[in-house]
Amino acid sequence: MEGLTKIDDLGKPRVVIVGGGFGGLELAKALADAPVQVVLIDKQNYHAFQPLLYQVATAGLDEGDIVSPFRKILNQQENFYFRLAEVTSIDPEKQVVETSIGLIRYDFLVLATGATSNYFGDAEMARNAIAIKSVEDAIELRNTVLSNFEQALQLGDYEQLNSMLDFVIVGGGPTGVEIAGALSELRTHVFPKDYREIDFKEMDIHVVQSGPVLLKGMSANASAKSLQYLKKLGVQVWLDTRVKSYDGYTVTLNNGQQLIARTLIWAAGVTGAPIAGLNADCLLAGNRYLVDGYSRVHGYENVFAIGDIALMKTDATPDGHPMVAQPALQQGDWLGRNLKRQLNGQLMEHFVYHDKGAMATIGRNHAVADVKFFGREFHLDGFIAWLAWSFIHVISLVSFRNRVAVFFSWAWNYFTQDKGLRYIIGKTKAPLVEKDMEEKAIV
Amino acid sequence: MEGLTKIDDLGKPRVVIVGGGFGGLELAKALADAPVQVVLIDKQNYHAFQPLLYQVATAGLDEGDIVSPFRKILNQQENFYFRLAEVTSIDPEKQVVETSIGLIRYDFLVLATGATSNYFGDAEMARNAIAIKSVEDAIELRNTVLSNFEQALQLGDYEQLNSMLDFVIVGGGPTGVEIAGALSELRTHVFPKDYREIDFKEMDIHVVQSGPVLLKGMSANASAKSLQYLKKLGVQVWLDTRVKSYDGYTVTLNNGQQLIARTLIWAAGVTGAPIAGLNADCLLAGNRYLVDGYSRVHGYENVFAIGDIALMKTDATPDGHPMVAQPALQQGDWLGRNLKRQLNGQLMEHFVYHDKGAMATIGRNHAVADVKFFGREFHLDGFIAWLAWSFIHVISLVSFRNRVAVFFSWAWNYFTQDKGLRYIIGKTKAPLVEKDMEEKAIV
Repeated sequence: MEGLTKIDDLGKPRVVIVGGGFGGLELAKALADAPVQVVLIDKQNYHAFQPLLYQVATAGLDEGDIVSPFRKILNQQENFYFRLAEVTSIDPEKQVVETSIGLIRYDFLVLATGATSNYFGDAEMARNAIAIKSVEDAIELRNTVLSNFEQALQLGDYEQLNSMLDFVIVGGGPTGVEIAGALSELRTHVFPKDYREIDFKEMDIHVVQSGPVLLKGMSANASAKSLQYLKKLGVQVWLDTRVKSYDGYTVTLNNGQQLIARTLIWAAGVTGAPIAGLNADCLLAGNRYLVDGYSRVHGYENVFAIGDIALMKTDATPDGHPMVAQPALQQGDWLGRNLKRQLNGQLMEHFVYHDKGAMATIGRNHAVADVKFFGREFHLDGFIAWLAWSFIHVISLVSFRNRVAVFFSWAWNYFTQDKGLRYIIGKTKAPLVEKDMEEKAIV
Repeated sequence: MEGLTKIDDLGKPRVVIVGGGFGGLELAKALADAPVQVVLIDKQNYHAFQPLLYQVATAGLDEGDIVSPFRKILNQQENFYFRLAEVTSIDPEKQVVETSIGLIRYDFLVLATGATSNYFGDAEMARNAIAIKSVEDAIELRNTVLSNFEQALQLGDYEQLNSMLDFVIVGGGPTGVEIAGALSELRTHVFPKDYREIDFKEMDIHVVQSGPVLLKGMSANASAKSLQYLKKLGVQVWLDTRVKSYDGYTVTLNNGQQLIARTLIWAAGVTGAPIAGLNADCLLAGNRYLVDGYSRVHGYENVFAIGDIALMKTDATPDGHPMVAQPALQQGDWLGRNLKRQLNGQLMEHFVYHDKGAMATIGRNHAVADVKFFGREFHLDGFIAWLAWSFIHVISLVSFRNRVAVFFSWAWNYFTQDKGLRYIIGKTKAPLVEKDMEEKAIV
């Protein structure tokens, strides 16, 4: 075929996995002993441990601590091939995907592209907000926070100074409360020593949550405790409130209130990241692919979707599974076993989700957790939940090196009450130009 | 004065230091107990440990391991002020420096801006080569090396494939031999596992040195041993050879030979990084400020220069001090003491350089060192020199956290024979466009 990219043909069925997040990586591993060729395609050459991105953004961890190059993770797996590329479309007739490096043929295609920030069509918000979905986002946020304080030193005007010191976080889910907690730790323990010229009583952290509770989907205990912890840390929580608009300076809430902040962190909705080429009827609201109980995309025999991008409607999950790590990890592993069954002429098995619960940490020593264990649910909070959260996150990291590095960094940060990685390297969110700022300040 | 930037006036003499490299940082520390206000201005918010940049570039260390934010290093020092800014010019009449954030007044000005790569006016070279003078350079080189291999997988044409795998290093000083050694370790121990589709016998590493020996300025033993080590590692060393031109693809040597390489690493000459505004007669060849025995810039009473940017001609050093860390560190500390003497009405003392020797490492287990100790010089090489090199570099890092992190990374890399930080995050040297490549390949 014309335009095929250069890749060995092993004479075995080829499984092409698009996206190396939790689902894609787990699937690639599960196929280690299968009589197939595994081709993983990703825009990055590394797997990022998304649940800790917010710590990179707040100078608690180095990006190197939470990423692992795919080639390093899987360099012992003989049937594994990696390609650094972006997939632009799928041709299910010809069984090829079109990528930035040429066409790649598949026998089985697995879409594991995950989700991206959903700005609900608000282009101004998309331009001015910072998300925390990728390592590059997290670095940009870290650089922007630090750069704000450096700029604040030069500002005499009270409102402009405050605009640099105030942070608005949209979304009261795990990411929202975790970043609010981490920023508040920086405000208390770290920044006042660095910036003695700034009065940190002027630094405000807002969390804007559209619903009536934080951590929607977790237990009532977790919602109540997380609110209590955030308030104790001095975070202003706006429940039942939405952000109407943000021009990079003024945040307008739906209750008419205006907040002034140069940094708005978008931790609200996500949407699937689909690829062109499949029938329109398999893509549902939220840009997720409708899949059957075998994770096959509706209408296709050899195209699968797992993780955030997949919407598997079952009696237990009429709206699909939660868009978090656990369903992706479990589906990756399960699909690997199912493909092996199919290749062996055995029947495939339906996916059964094992909900292990959920947890979120809020600053130093505090977390909330709903743990599911042998069918029973336990609610933990405070220090014990924080220890559990820390332990589970360390052991869940992909490589042993990452585990040691994160453990070391956390122990260091904990005992020194410091977060040492507050350097500005790489991209910073471009501030409004001075002229814009002055005009806004007059208005 | 109009346009003055906002900064506390402590009512004490203000020492403005431009540049927080080895010299500037050491001076700021030395003034901790002086009755002055210390204002450090730097384009970055961190001090970078330059001697280990090449390890960031070759995935052995994370940038976080070798940088420390200035505010963190000095947040206990009450008279210390930091400003993130670029200094564009000096007005010695008005005693102000013009910066990207406004004018800053000084009583004493210390220029510690260091050196940048010297391409000797070759704009094409400056555009196509990669330097290793800053953290951003090192990251760009790491990303480019990794991205070359990813691209090489797609290339069928023998010459184009080879252009991705071959590296030309210009300059046989410490940086040149160290990066050649590190690349050669990657070629032997790391890349063949990652890229099984590539034949690493095709990966060539060239070092081009204008003079007859490597490590010019070190002992004959160091020069001979480093050549021997590099040859053992399979590095091709071109002595008495210069690069005439480089268009991003073809390297033309002065002996007529051509090498094909998409990556040329510039580790040849450096030049001072002066600032506009001082009399022309104080700036000598190599863009270094002529200073007297008190480090005062020629013709000025209260403008000093230290480190790479300063050229102090003494009987012992008719061409100035070597442009390395030691003179900068010693001058920073000494100038701090001298300024205190001057403020106390005491006479200042002349600078006396204590040459402690020089060292360079060449791959795993091998280094060369000329150690000066109580006036005698010892030559070390092999494993013992490598241990000494490692020990001295670890203890020389600025913060205890960096020391622990580097020690951990090195121990890990040594025992696993792996370098785990091979992810592509941030800037990559833009490759030539495909069309250019095809045209070049035809020629």
